[in-house]
Parts: sequence; structure tokens; C-alpha cells
Amino acid sequence: MIPKGFSFSAVNAGIKSPDYQGLDLGLISCSTEAVASGVFTKNLVKAAPVVIGMEQARKGIARAIIANSGNANACTGKQGIDDARAIMEAMARSLQISTEEVIPLSTGVIGVRMPVERILPKVQLLADQLSDNANCFARCLMTTDTFPKIVSRRAGDANVLGFAKGAGMIAPHMATTLAVVLTDANVNKQHLDNIIYYSIKDTFNAITVDGDMSTNDTLVALSSGLIHAELTDVQQAISETIRELAMMIVSDGEGATKFVTITVSGAEGNREAKTIAMAVANSLLVKTALFGADPNWGRIVAAVGYAGIPLDPEKISLNIQGLHVVEGGQQAATFDETALHEALLLKEIVIDISVGNGPGRFQAWTTDLSYKYVEINAQYRT
Amino acid sequence: MIPKGFSFSAVNAGIKSPDYQGLDLGLISCSTEAVASGVFTKNLVKAAPVVIGMEQARKGIARAIIANSGNANACTGKQGIDDARAIMEAMARSLQISTEEVIPLSTGVIGVRMPVERILPKVQLLADQLSDNANCFARCLMTTDTFPKIVSRRAGDANVLGFAKGAGMIAPHMATTLAVVLTDANVNKQHLDNIIYYSIKDTFNAITVDGDMSTNDTLVALSSGLIHAELTDVQQAISETIRELAMMIVSDGEGATKFVTITVSGAEGNREAKTIAMAVANSLLVKTALFGADPNWGRIVAAVGYAGIPLDPEKISLNIQGLHVVEGGQQAATFDETALHEALLLKEIVIDISVGNGPGRFQAWTTDLSYKYVEINAQYRT
Repeated sequence: MIPKGFSFSAVNAGIKSPDYQGLDLGLISCSTEAVASGVFTKNLVKAAPVVIGMEQARKGIARAIIANSGNANACTGKQGIDDARAIMEAMARSLQISTEEVIPLSTGVIGVRMPVERILPKVQLLADQLSDNANCFARCLMTTDTFPKIVSRRAGDANVLGFAKGAGMIAPHMATTLAVVLTDANVNKQHLDNIIYYSIKDTFNAITVDGDMSTNDTLVALSSGLIHAELTDVQQAISETIRELAMMIVSDGEGATKFVTITVSGAEGNREAKTIAMAVANSLLVKTALFGADPNWGRIVAAVGYAGIPLDPEKISLNIQGLHVVEGGQQAATFDETALHEALLLKEIVIDISVGNGPGRFQAWTTDLSYKYVEINAQYRT
Repeated sequence: MIPKGFSFSAVNAGIKSPDYQGLDLGLISCSTEAVASGVFTKNLVKAAPVVIGMEQARKGIARAIIANSGNANACTGKQGIDDARAIMEAMARSLQISTEEVIPLSTGVIGVRMPVERILPKVQLLADQLSDNANCFARCLMTTDTFPKIVSRRAGDANVLGFAKGAGMIAPHMATTLAVVLTDANVNKQHLDNIIYYSIKDTFNAITVDGDMSTNDTLVALSSGLIHAELTDVQQAISETIRELAMMIVSDGEGATKFVTITVSGAEGNREAKTIAMAVANSLLVKTALFGADPNWGRIVAAVGYAGIPLDPEKISLNIQGLHVVEGGQQAATFDETALHEALLLKEIVIDISVGNGPGRFQAWTTDLSYKYVEINAQYRT
């Protein structure tokens, strides 16, 4: 269900090019002064909307989100900030709210000036078309996504609704991609900040498609506060929403034919386990082997070895699809190459790596690497 | 010219499979007790021949190198060490030298036991067929290489000859791939160690095809000491040999259609410049854009931003193929998308990035990422 207080709209503004006909400009409006939280890319090259949004999330108040795909408004300097502000101002005028209450989100090509002249004439339309059609907002975020990403959960009597866009430039150590989480639960700024912070740790910060970190990654959470709910219920609903969005992003990874879950256990700490898991998840040789259902487990062990975490190679054990593959750093006695090849033909791949007896553990999600990924990314702009 | 004192042979041993008909087992023999140096993978998961070779390089004496492709003898535990030693012993018997004087080199699939029963019967043949045909040794190292990699240089009256294998699992921070450098120049252990150490820094440790670091990477240098040469001449000849081998490896990178030189300048130090250059060189989005001749420069700037080195995004400038693309973190006023696209259709790509006013500088070499890379690596074993 739609969280109370929120309404949605999306239009075509021809942002990527005047010929583009899909939804590429969207609005979320909140009838109350919403509590706002946000997490942002750790890339030092930050898009204009990220620079603006970070300040807004710190203040913690918003009434609207205006989002676009087709242009990232990144590497656009002061002009980019001015353009983002011009759009925020127009949106604020149409909604009769203050400019600072409009959070901008952008995704798309880097380094091209925002086509403000095509966006501004559409802003009033956004305000006029507000409805409970949340799906249109999910669609306006799409770039190379093959399906809109929208998730809803109940938190007692309250509701949580999440949106995200995929599907490349997905890498850890940040709030990956654009995502929006809305709730009508009455949660204060500090609680919302904490919930988001802890929810992304093992979800948005545990996924990788290609190891590339975007200039625009943002997750914004808004609460209208119109319904009372227990904090633990809200916490769980938001964290499940974020988890499901993260999994959707991976399963819609550019060109992905596999959904891969990599769990590393037995490391000294969780941080060490994460570094190892991410080395395996980002290994091109592992990803291409998975695409080809190649039972070439040595590539996984090699990636464990170069992750940069001290470990004893003779303590490495590896299970793939529940099959025992490596024990004590060597091929397990029961290893069956044909069985492993057949198990790797499935779409869901589960890789369990143990590196010792430590308490550290981390689970990462990734994709395989296919011809299609190359095709999508060799032709993005043409 | 062939360095004095060295002879070569190679045979087929059906190492990858009994059906394989190419050269996959090779020998270099030295008529004197050669001075030996080596640099080895930093991967914690080290193949048996790496474990053995590291000790031999420390001692610094060798009379032979036995090398094979088709099997890495990695993740094979104590059995792998025993197998490598059995091969070294047989080779030493045939050559009437000591086992410890035979350096083993292996490359190929990880985790499969060496087919000792197919290798041992071929060892006498290797000894019997020794000649000045160095090319056959270069060929026996080949896996997915499309051409043998062999380089020669003069050092005054002395000679330097280098061999390497490519072409995937190529990553920095180590002596990448298998490589052998031979010289007849009279250079002592300490000088040879230093020459190798400094030569790989900006060559083998500056290249990347896929960011994956092998379990077997080794560069071995042997000097027969039969000819007098000036140390500076030897230094230059070896360093040029290693540089050319490194460039050959990149130009034969798996599926590569482009040879890409990335120079980062203006960083605080060379180490910072290297980290930034390698982030760009390993970015899948940059590599796929280059494959598609896509003038999507934002991906380069994004990779600079996530490299993990503190910098001011507004000080980033970028030239591609000599065309001015980014100034002060934004698209340069003179940017011409069509001109850049056309310049990117060339095979040699030159990317120059400046990140500030510091003295730090590093040049990295890499490839683009093509369909062919995915094809090669999805089907390696089948």
C-alpha cells in the first residue's frame, strides 16, 4: 500500500534527447513536512544533485523529490548546481513549497549540461498529475533497467514503499544507485538515519555488478509521520524493503544471467570477510566462468588469495551450489567436475567460502559477466 | 642474438589433455652455473613452482628452467610440491645437474594435479633436443596468447633475450605472468636483483588486462656471465626487454582490440598517481566504452573520483588522443564529441589525466574489454 501523505507523477521531458519518448522526469510529493534521511556516493566526484541533497539530508526536512534519468548532472560545475536549483525552484513554485524542500535526484550520462529548457516547461505538469500511481515514478528512474524496481512492506499499521534504479555502475562502499524509501510511520530524524545506515550496510553496500562507483548514488528516505507504528516494526519493514531493492538491482544487473550469492566466513572480522567476498564478486575471471558454467574453482581461490587480507591458503574451503569443492586449499576428494558444471547451469549461484576459524562473516551479491554487459556498455550513448 | 651459454627445447606432453598437440613443455639449459633472480606473485595462494622458485631465486643459482603450460600446479598442496620436485629431479638427471639447479615454471588451470605420468617420459627428449631455437620455448608458454612473446636486445657485446606469456589474469602489484629474461652479460646477483626490481616497477607492475592476479606469476632472470658488458648497458637492455614484453602482453590481452596508455600526473606522489591510473585502467565501464569508441569521458572522471585518493574534482583535466576533453572537472569549451569518437576508433588510445599540481606521475597500460574477452574466459576449460 502507498504510505499515507505521498503522491506521485512522471512525464516525458526528452532529457537524454528530444526524441526520447519514455518517462524520464518524476515527482514525489508529501502533504506534510517529511522527515528526511539520505546516504550518498563516496565518489569524490559528486554530481550537483548529490552536493545539494547531502546538505538537505543533514537538515532532515523535505516535501518533494524531483528525479530524472537521462542526465546525471555530474561534472557540470557551478552551472550544474545552478541548473539543479532552477529546477528545484520551478518545482517549489508549482507545489507552493520552499525550494529547499525539494530534493533533486539525477541519473544518466555524466558531463552533459541538464536540458533545463526542456525540463522547466514540464514541471507544472508534474504537479498537476500527482496521483497514487507510484509505478510511474519507478519507471522514470530507469536507464538500462529491464524492469521498474518497487517494493512495499507493512510496518504494523504503517507502510513502507521503496524505489530503485539499476543496473550498471554498481559497486560497494556507498548507497549504490538511486533509491527512495517512503514511509508514513512516525519516526524521528535520528531513528530514520540509524535505520537507513544499518540497512544499507549488508544490502546496498554488499552488491556489485561491475565494481564501478557512480557519481550520483543516493538513497533518500522520507517519512510523512501520519501513522503510528512501533519502531522495531518500522526498522524491519524498511530494512526488508532496502534488502529486496538491492537484490532486484543485482538480478537486473546489466547483461546478468546469474544471481550470485557469495558468503565468506571464518575471517578475522566482518570487514576482512567483506574485502574477500568483494574481491571474488568483482573478479572478471570468476564472473565470466560463472557465465559459462565453467567449474573453474581455481579462479575463486585465486581471488581469495589476492584480496589483500592475510590468510592461510591451506585453510581455504569452498562449497559451490552445496557441492564440496575445496578443502584445505586443495580440490576436495569428492569433487565431481560434471556435477558442478551441471549445478552451475542454474540461474541462482551460491558460493560459500571459509578462510579459517575466525568469527568474521559477510554475504555479497553479484552477477555473472556476459556478452550483453559488454554490448550495453560499449553503446551506452550511441 | 641468443645469449651465449643458453640452449632451448620444447615438446608436446599433452599436459592440458592427452589430445592436446601443441608445445606445452619447454627447457632452457645454461652451460654455466647461472646467476638467478626472480620476482613472484603477491597472491597468498601461491602455486607449487612459485613456492619452490622463490627459494631458488633467493639462493641465486640455476642451470636450467623447465616450464609448462596447461596446468598451473596451484592449489595442489603437498602433492603439487612433490610433483614439481619429481619433474625437477628427472630433468636434473637428464642434464646431469643437481635438482636444486632446475627452476620450475607452470601456467594453466588451477587445482588439477600435474599429469606427471605424461611429463616424465618427455624429459629426456627435452635434454636431447636442446638447440638455439629459442622460439620453441616461447611457444610452449602460450595459453590464450595469440602470438609468442620474445624480445632481444644488445648490451654492448652481450645479449639479452626475454620471453613472456600473456594474456589474461593480468593485474598489477606483482611480476605479472610467466616471464624469463636471459643474458650472457657478467652481472652479479645483487645487480641482477636490482635491475629486475626496478625494471618491473613501471612495466610488469603497470599493466592490467582484467585486474585478476594469478597464483603463478613469476619473472626469472638468468645470467650465464660469459661476456663482459658495462652494467649501465646491461641495465638498459634488460629494462627495455622487460618493457617490451609488458607491452606485448597488453597488446595480446584476451580479446583486446585497443592498446591503452593511461598517464596520471599532478598527483601528490607516484604511488597516488598509480592508484588513480589503475582505477581507470581497471574500470569495466571505461574499458567497454573504449571498445565501443564511445566518447563517454564521464566514466573516466568517475573512476578518478572513486580511486580512493584524496583530490579536488575541480582540478581534474583530461586529454584523450590529444584532444582536450575536461578542464577544471567539467567538459572543456572546445570539446567535440564527433572528433573524439573518430579518434577513439584508432587501435592505440592515449589518455592523459591531470589531478592537480603535485609531482606524482604514473603511466599504466591496459586494454579495452570486448565480447571476445567474455568468450575466451567463459569457455576456458571446455
